[in-house]
This record gives sequence, C-alpha cells and structure tokens, in this order.
Amino acid sequence: MSIARHDPTAILSQAVEHGDTVYLAGIVAKDYSKDVKGQTKEIVDQIDALLAKCGSNKSKILAATIWVTDIRNRALMNEVWTEWVDKKNLPARACVEAALADPKALVEIMVTAAK
Amino acid sequence: MSIARHDPTAILSQAVEHGDTVYLAGIVAKDYSKDVKGQTKEIVDQIDALLAKCGSNKSKILAATIWVTDIRNRALMNEVWTEWVDKKNLPARACVEAALADPKALVEIMVTAAK
Amino acid sequence: MSIARHDPTAILSQAVEHGDTVYLAGIVAKDYSKDVKGQTKEIVDQIDALLAKCGSNKSKILAATIWVTDIRNRALMNEVWTEWVDKKNLPARACVEAALADPKALVEIMVTAAK
Repeated sequence: MSIARHDPTAILSQAVEHGDTVYLAGIVAKDYSKDVKGQTKEIVDQIDALLAKCGSNKSKILAATIWVTDIRNRALMNEVWTEWVDKKNLPARACVEAALADPKALVEIMVTAAK
Repeated sequence: MSIARHDPTAILSQAVEHGDTVYLAGIVAKDYSKDVKGQTKEIVDQIDALLAKCGSNKSKILAATIWVTDIRNRALMNEVWTEWVDKKNLPARACVEAALADPKALVEIMVTAAK
Repeated sequence: MSIARHDPTAILSQAVEHGDTVYLAGIVAKDYSKDVKGQTKEIVDQIDALLAKCGSNKSKILAATIWVTDIRNRALMNEVWTEWVDKKNLPARACVEAALADPKALVEIMVTAAK
C-alpha cells in the first residue's frame, strides 16, 4: 500500500496516508492565548483541513485520542467537539489528562481516519 | 473499505469497523464503586462484547493503550489483564498514568483489533 | 488479513503484524540508569530491530505516541529523535507527559508502521 506524507515540520508529518487509512499528528491550537473552547475550535479546523488534503473528512474519522491539561476542561472541550463532530458518524474516542509540550496549550487531539 | 459504527453515545461510537480493522473507544467500568481489579474486569467484559459485535474477539487484538489513574495500580490491573488476555495472541500494549474523565474511574483501556 | 506476533512477554507482544500494518508495543529503555537521551537512543534502537523483524523500517513509520515522565525532557528526547528519524519520511506524532510503569523510565515510544 502506498504512503503519502503531508505538511512536515522538523520532527513530524501533520498527516500520513497509508492505503485507505489516514494518521494525523497530535494537533494543538496555533493561538495559545485562546481559552479551551477557542483552542479546541482551532484544532478541529486544522483537522478538517488536514483530512481534506488526504481526501478524507470528519465523517470518516475512525478513532481519536484527546489530551486535556486539566481534565476539568473536558466538558468545555466537549462542547466544541459535539458541535463539530459528525453525529451520524461518531468515532471511537478516549480523553485523558496530560501535560503538553507547550505549557500554554490546553488541548491536543490525534485522529485516525478512513479515506 | 466500508465503515460500520456501533453503540453511539452523545460524543463517540463504542466501536468502529474499517475494513478488517476494529477501533474501540477508551472503555471504563460501569460501576465505579469497584476496586481496580473489579473495574478492569468490567472493562474487559465490555471489550469482549464490543469485539463480538464487530465479528472479532480477544485473540485478534492488535494493540492496546491502558491508562491507570495511579501507576501503582498497574500490577493489580495486570492480574485481571493476564487472566483475560489470550496468552497465545498477546497484543502490543502501552500502559501509562493519566487522570480520567470521571475521578472515580481507575482504569481505561482502548484497543485496536483485527476482524 | 494475516496476523503475526513477535517477542511476547508475559503480558504483551513487542510487535504485531496485521496485513500491511505493524503495531509495536510501548518501548522503554533496558538500562534505566541512562539519562533521557541515553534512554531514547536505546528505545529507537529497539524500534529499529522490531521493525526489521516485521519487514519494515523507520522510513515506513506512520504514527508515534511518545510519553515523557517530565515534559521538560521533550527537547532532549527530540535531539535523539531528530537524529534518528527519516527526515524524508516523518511520521505523525504526539508527545505528552505521563508517569510510566517503572519510576526510573523517562521515555516510552509506541509506533505504528507500514510494511
């Protein structure tokens, strides 16, 4: 199966296609001055754009791992998640607490999708 | 490849099939009054049921991520894991510590399996 | 699709092949007396060996999850990562903080690769 990689940084690719499966990097907000909901909105917008580059979209997300730096922020993150996610095609998901690379990042989301 | 989703909640599907691969959500116990071993037993029972819905079973688990809220509980979780898992078909696995959505949840397990 | 499992311990397989996809366990250093960079080097050496057993190699890594016990060690881990990883074939990646099974382990890396 073919592999295609998109949007490399110094250390990772933001998206990798392998056959019919797409692996995205853990995505964080670009503007850390935003609150949990604002950061989550920035993340899902980036996920939409990356999936589009791979010929996929949010209706084809298979699984997601979500890290929040304070688990008490899960409810606020979920508000944006629920508004964004395709309610007829909900992915498998886990959401746990973890400190992230930048102390100002509040949420990170890593998804696997189908094409 | 076809996608099939099972047991949706408001925010996720408990299981998603994509071709020959099955992605389960992070599964937690239903009865948080149980101890680590009791919660782990409830989790693996749910995993068995979800895999069965997808035409899979524990002998076909490919990888698992396990979160425990206190890493010192790993040994107790492992007692139930070891009794449950198919010893001739052990999955790849990682187990790390993380705070979970409900403060009474002690363990969460997310698996990927073959069909 | 066929499943092949390699290097079982009591609780997990270090590597699992499923069709064209390879799932490795969360890999930690063997010598915990080493520092972050030393432990990371031991980890990537083990990943190289496990991928080779599966007919894969680091140029085919699709995604990686990295846990560091202190997120401030991410930069040191990244020095070894950057030297090791195939710069023309960077995987999707997430790196978060978590306590690990052995308190002396500083880094754990879990990868998914293509064959």
